[in-house]
Amino acid sequence: MADPLRIGIAGLGTVGTSTIRLLDRRANALAASCGRAITVAAVSARSRSRDRGISIERYRWFDDPVALARDPGIDVFVELMGGDEGPAHEAVRAALDMGTPVVTANKALLARHGVDLARRAEKAGVALNFEAAVAGGVPIIKTLREALVGNNIDRVYGILNGTCNYILTRMEAEGLSFGACLAEAQRLGYAEADPTFDIGGFDTAHKLALLTSLAFGTQVDAEAIHVEGIERITTEDLAAAAELGYRIKLLGVATRSESGVEQRVHPTMVPRSTPIAQVDGVTNAVAIDADAIPELTLVGPGAGGEATASAVVGDLADIARGQVMAPFGRPSGELTPLPHAAMQAHKGGYYVRLSVVDRPGAAAGIATRMAERGISLESIVQKHRGGRVYGGDDPSKVAGSVPVVLITYATTEAHIRLALEAMVADGYIVEPPQLIRIERE
Amino acid sequence: MADPLRIGIAGLGTVGTSTIRLLDRRANALAASCGRAITVAAVSARSRSRDRGISIERYRWFDDPVALARDPGIDVFVELMGGDEGPAHEAVRAALDMGTPVVTANKALLARHGVDLARRAEKAGVALNFEAAVAGGVPIIKTLREALVGNNIDRVYGILNGTCNYILTRMEAEGLSFGACLAEAQRLGYAEADPTFDIGGFDTAHKLALLTSLAFGTQVDAEAIHVEGIERITTEDLAAAAELGYRIKLLGVATRSESGVEQRVHPTMVPRSTPIAQVDGVTNAVAIDADAIPELTLVGPGAGGEATASAVVGDLADIARGQVMAPFGRPSGELTPLPHAAMQAHKGGYYVRLSVVDRPGAAAGIATRMAERGISLESIVQKHRGGRVYGGDDPSKVAGSVPVVLITYATTEAHIRLALEAMVADGYIVEPPQLIRIERE
Repeated sequence: MADPLRIGIAGLGTVGTSTIRLLDRRANALAASCGRAITVAAVSARSRSRDRGISIERYRWFDDPVALARDPGIDVFVELMGGDEGPAHEAVRAALDMGTPVVTANKALLARHGVDLARRAEKAGVALNFEAAVAGGVPIIKTLREALVGNNIDRVYGILNGTCNYILTRMEAEGLSFGACLAEAQRLGYAEADPTFDIGGFDTAHKLALLTSLAFGTQVDAEAIHVEGIERITTEDLAAAAELGYRIKLLGVATRSESGVEQRVHPTMVPRSTPIAQVDGVTNAVAIDADAIPELTLVGPGAGGEATASAVVGDLADIARGQVMAPFGRPSGELTPLPHAAMQAHKGGYYVRLSVVDRPGAAAGIATRMAERGISLESIVQKHRGGRVYGGDDPSKVAGSVPVVLITYATTEAHIRLALEAMVADGYIVEPPQLIRIERE
Repeated sequence: MADPLRIGIAGLGTVGTSTIRLLDRRANALAASCGRAITVAAVSARSRSRDRGISIERYRWFDDPVALARDPGIDVFVELMGGDEGPAHEAVRAALDMGTPVVTANKALLARHGVDLARRAEKAGVALNFEAAVAGGVPIIKTLREALVGNNIDRVYGILNGTCNYILTRMEAEGLSFGACLAEAQRLGYAEADPTFDIGGFDTAHKLALLTSLAFGTQVDAEAIHVEGIERITTEDLAAAAELGYRIKLLGVATRSESGVEQRVHPTMVPRSTPIAQVDGVTNAVAIDADAIPELTLVGPGAGGEATASAVVGDLADIARGQVMAPFGRPSGELTPLPHAAMQAHKGGYYVRLSVVDRPGAAAGIATRMAERGISLESIVQKHRGGRVYGGDDPSKVAGSVPVVLITYATTEAHIRLALEAMVADGYIVEPPQLIRIERE
């Protein structure tokens, strides 16, 4: 059997300690699969003495992760610190420039510096693996990078943030407000004290940027992503979606068409019958539409120490077997700049919820403004206060107004925005309209 | 760039011709991903002149697939002929013994000769890849063999046969009989003229045998599988399942416990809320329960020329990049003989549908026989003929009898069988009882 693969781990939070545990537990199977053992040689973390439930005394200790990354006694550097700048960035660069392969779970780092880091890895001829950076234990990177290489991919989309999916699932199931469900998620440890990064869609955007690059062979470009969070979703919206045969999910969506690549993160209406609509709680799901495979969906745990560690260990096993691939599936020099499709050109159906002034002519006025922009309506539901579906309990409601829900046939973002602006200018609308894009199979 | 990888394809049906098409269509992306081109060098098929919609004149022709397998001008032999004996077996053996890697979609061949072929591949130090053999375009082999290597797997189960799932979906949706839906599937090309292999569960069993080996590190052992088909499922069963919150799917299930490994293929009640229950039509799905990943589900096209070819091309790309793995995830000498758990020891809940003689004491007699075996009932539904759920249209019904549906709590196969035998002996039951196992999350 070949020499063991000696790894150095920087960052010993839940994922780091779970990685050590999995490597122990599966030592025999890993050696059998890889033809060599995988052993932890050295570690680095903020605190050496913190109780992690495992002993780290058997490993060499580094105060400085960058020094660990440069250590010639490790064969792989595992970066589990997080952060898109500072020590994580410096350490990953240092390892790659030394010719040491890297495994990382750091989506923020890759979303920002992915192309540069891929270039460094390729120059050194070593692996830069990041299965754990997207959807935790779901092997979506390997699927896109290896299994689907025979496919032209048209679309990749998914539920990539467990916090948001948990909150939306709870709001729908219990009829509770966004604020109440966020507080609950925070109590249960599913949401951070400062939840902005998750609920604002930014975490999803980082992951989507990586999936887009892998799916389309384009340079990672997180700046080009249109991002909306779930803060403005109300129980009214969830009830209306249910009534109309949809569920609301925070999706990251990347599509390719003649006009370019669209990357967007926003609350989305998905038909109730789709696999992705069935995904509840903190679970993640990714769906891929490709020419040879009409739809492939992967569903599984998107977070958690052990699930994420499972992805880290899979990446390590690939390296132990000698696999070296271009990090984004093709050499970084062959990744094309992302042909950014403007959000205004987005085509699709829309859910629109309006608070309309309760006076004659308002409904006709709204219909006219839609027609002017060539927008056809699939359905229109108007119910008076106290009505079964859109009635009652929404604190955002305004007296003297009537809630109206419209579902449009496919139109463009530019047209629907112009139509809504005109309605607002007409004085028909008493609060900011709610606009949710519909994603079809 | 390295020399092209020259492949020889034996078998030019839909999968073979789709493979050639995909290799053409994705030539640039494949070369970028693999660092070398993948080119078809030679082909073999039953007929040289048949119109396949693609020209095969540019490839060298072999009448004999074994001669193609032995040709020194190919770097990989792709076997797409099918059959567990004869030319397919001989050709794959010949290629491996020559030191030529093999890609195959042939589940029957691997279910029967997997361990021997793996040994030959390892001896030659070459790959034997078979992603296309299970669940078509769904990358389940790669997921088990590579991505989940950090996990102890407890269970793998799935919908592995599109024909059966199509028939069950149609029976449920339309209330049509098994025979009518089978005829429809045959008309649409989803079922063979002789459908026994699919509807009897044997195709699912071949695929399950491969998944079991990969999941548990055991020798492929298709003989040990308990196999039941879907022929006896009635619209009555599907309606009762729906009423009770379940759907009926033909599953292949492999579980590991202290008593050994259970491998079984049979119609199964799955809770309606599970991802696998949502899978309709010819789609396949595989779910994995592992220690680090509580549940991972992959859903996608299980058949079709292009989807299966996508898996073949993924396998070829791995070989083009130089990847060589033990075919079943660990060296064949380290695969343990399957510790076969007897079906009589199977533990789980059961759905039992009985036609009970319509006379006093029958219900009490049935309850007593269950109690004697320590079987607790979760629910019992008895409805008279013409009742809403279990009434009316089943031709198997017998006058003077009442349909009774029982759902049991977990018991053993041995106990439920003994209880049913006793009821039959008592004369309470007028037709063979229907027994469907329940699979929980």
